[in-house]
Amino acid sequence: MTDEPSDAQESRQESRHARGLRMLKAIHPQVGERVVDGVAAVSPDLARCLVEFPFGDVYARPGLDLRSRQIATIAALVTLGGAERQLKWHVRGGLNVGLNRDEILEVIQQMTIYAGFPRALNALTAAQEVFEEIEAEAAEEARQDDA
Amino acid sequence: MTDEPSDAQESRQESRHARGLRMLKAIHPQVGERVVDGVAAVSPDLARCLVEFPFGDVYARPGLDLRSRQIATIAALVTLGGAERQLKWHVRGGLNVGLNRDEILEVIQQMTIYAGFPRALNALTAAQEVFEEIEAEAAEEARQDDA
Amino acid sequence: MTDEPSDAQESRQESRHARGLRMLKAIHPQVGERVVDGVAAVSPDLARCLVEFPFGDVYARPGLDLRSRQIATIAALVTLGGAERQLKWHVRGGLNVGLNRDEILEVIQQMTIYAGFPRALNALTAAQEVFEEIEAEAAEEARQDDA
Amino acid sequence: MTDEPSDAQESRQESRHARGLRMLKAIHPQVGERVVDGVAAVSPDLARCLVEFPFGDVYARPGLDLRSRQIATIAALVTLGGAERQLKWHVRGGLNVGLNRDEILEVIQQMTIYAGFPRALNALTAAQEVFEEIEAEAAEEARQDDA
Amino acid sequence: MTDEPSDAQESRQESRHARGLRMLKAIHPQVGERVVDGVAAVSPDLARCLVEFPFGDVYARPGLDLRSRQIATIAALVTLGGAERQLKWHVRGGLNVGLNRDEILEVIQQMTIYAGFPRALNALTAAQEVFEEIEAEAAEEARQDDA
Amino acid sequence: MTDEPSDAQESRQESRHARGLRMLKAIHPQVGERVVDGVAAVSPDLARCLVEFPFGDVYARPGLDLRSRQIATIAALVTLGGAERQLKWHVRGGLNVGLNRDEILEVIQQMTIYAGFPRALNALTAAQEVFEEIEAEAAEEARQDDA
Repeated sequence: MTDEPSDAQESRQESRHARGLRMLKAIHPQVGERVVDGVAAVSPDLARCLVEFPFGDVYARPGLDLRSRQIATIAALVTLGGAERQLKWHVRGGLNVGLNRDEILEVIQQMTIYAGFPRALNALTAAQEVFEEIEAEAAEEARQDDA
Repeated sequence: MTDEPSDAQESRQESRHARGLRMLKAIHPQVGERVVDGVAAVSPDLARCLVEFPFGDVYARPGLDLRSRQIATIAALVTLGGAERQLKWHVRGGLNVGLNRDEILEVIQQMTIYAGFPRALNALTAAQEVFEEIEAEAAEEARQDDA
Repeated sequence: MTDEPSDAQESRQESRHARGLRMLKAIHPQVGERVVDGVAAVSPDLARCLVEFPFGDVYARPGLDLRSRQIATIAALVTLGGAERQLKWHVRGGLNVGLNRDEILEVIQQMTIYAGFPRALNALTAAQEVFEEIEAEAAEEARQDDA
Repeated sequence: MTDEPSDAQESRQESRHARGLRMLKAIHPQVGERVVDGVAAVSPDLARCLVEFPFGDVYARPGLDLRSRQIATIAALVTLGGAERQLKWHVRGGLNVGLNRDEILEVIQQMTIYAGFPRALNALTAAQEVFEEIEAEAAEEARQDDA
Repeated sequence: MTDEPSDAQESRQESRHARGLRMLKAIHPQVGERVVDGVAAVSPDLARCLVEFPFGDVYARPGLDLRSRQIATIAALVTLGGAERQLKWHVRGGLNVGLNRDEILEVIQQMTIYAGFPRALNALTAAQEVFEEIEAEAAEEARQDDA
Repeated sequence: MTDEPSDAQESRQESRHARGLRMLKAIHPQVGERVVDGVAAVSPDLARCLVEFPFGDVYARPGLDLRSRQIATIAALVTLGGAERQLKWHVRGGLNVGLNRDEILEVIQQMTIYAGFPRALNALTAAQEVFEEIEAEAAEEARQDDA
């Protein structure tokens, strides 16, 4: 069996929850906290789990850069299907960690091979919505700066 | 955001890993350790994660009895498809926590409605293999006791 | 081959259709009839089939209690994905046959292990919508009782 | 709600089970009975259900010819994935009801669009295995006729 | 390895793109061009790919008639799930190449066996929406002809 | 609609098929040709399509490096499930284009979040088999060099 890790040792370092929140803010600065709060309103335990396991345990691991991780996540969500909400969240996350729009569209187009055209076309619509939301937000910010 | 749980507090109690191993042994006394060791041979980190998240974090939660949890897991694995190895593991786990064979076959038959007949028929084969393995093990034990 | 069951014998007892309607009313007293009528408006044959096979043939079987059956169905629908309408129907059905909200949330949280977080998060939203609809209905009833 | 069909009326006609067996023999003369017997060895009830619902209730419906039904089934099984055993059964069934090998390969190739290349390539392997089994059977029969 | 096809030869004949557009218009006269334009607004490359691969390379193949191809596509999209937009497009395409409404409903009902009832019920809703849209369009046309 | 690309222009450049073969050799030097030959033995048309569309049209696109493309493909195949043969092919392809074993294991572990633990555990087994095959090949080569 695997060695039992020292929880005492962990507690002297950053907690899983603190590390998860830090990763969540790095990848999803705009929407991360809102998503977690929305989950917490129904199930505080699932919200805590969402911060600690995906973000605290997995994304925080050192073996793969965040840009590569977002490529993997976008590919997975396109393939999974029926996860447009999560895909939109991670398209934005991909842009946040250094992917550009064309790279995201390349990943989506490549998924025609593995997940088929319907999944890729649905993902394209989701990506387009994110791109438009970002432009609308930028326009709104520019409008407010002018005022 | 959710309150940050106290890791220090947790470390005074049972660790996630110890709790996960305890649950694993409760549900899968025969095969649990072997499965985790097999995973650890390729990825010790994924093995640790397998003990801590599914078993330490989820199955150990008090809100649902293990019999109900195994029903949910068997239903999920039948529906998922392509997870016959995990299904066999959890059919055995279901028997360990109090489901009888007929109840497991009922869950599989019910999945014809939601996952279709191919998934249910594949699950039936997996369940049958478990039942036969258990009988072979019992016969072998009886033979050894006689010797 | 299996023995041919006596249809004549069945017809002396409760018909598949009557039994299906009885089960449908037991599990889905509020929405069952409406769902079947909606299906019947497009395809009377599929509506008949929906009453007779899932409810008349499967849910009516004696080998598993309805509470366990709803756990299995909720787990299956979370895992399947893209079945939020049916999931909402069965979350309500689960409450009708004795599951409480926390137990349903436990099943959903457990599905993070087998179906992944996106499926579980979508299911959480669906469950929340059902809980809110039930509260709105109760508030409306209370309002009418006061009037 | 849908009108309650007369079970008494049905019992004067061909029973569901007899109709299912008749359809099963029409589509799967070689392997149908063997598959049902294999299921019955584990679960007689699921075996009965397999004869009565898919074959007795659905394939026996007059609105679509069997050739078209096998095209739909092959497309569905390629897309579903993890159902190679059922796919092989229905590739053979397709040949039995009038599809030729090239038409079956066309359906599989078309699925690259909707289900992706991995699903189509796995289906191609399954189809090839059926074609080879049929040729081996024909060679064996020819050998026995010569003797 | 496969022989390298002569691109020069192809360019003397109809190009993939021209052939794809021709097939797209044959199957989807009303909506095909609009769908491709919508894709092209986000990704001109994916739009070109959509015309050339599914329609130029696959649907244009001579080995299977378009009616059979639409049956396969509808079965695949029902099974895939989460592809209601594409399913609606192809239900209309099925009607365009000679399937009638009852045949499409038969394919959907048959999918209860392979993909389960939730997928079939979602598909039924999608089909119904197409049927209603077609009736609304016909009513609108009739109104305009009267004016 | 999209502009019709000049096929004549393409034919002056590298053909789709030649480009596909070139990409196939770059990503899958050991197994690519063998896989295509295996497909061609059943369906020469699907083999040609496999070279031209995924490799000639998609992987050859300049907008994303091959290392990123293999991350996306591995993530997709883990998520899809039931595609262990293709996953093994692409794990090897990933190593060929610059991913190391730990990065591939990171992608697989990350998929526990999106596709669940059964998909990730099956992928781990597939990856392990590839790693062992590569070691066995290296040992065999070393043995032959010594002779």
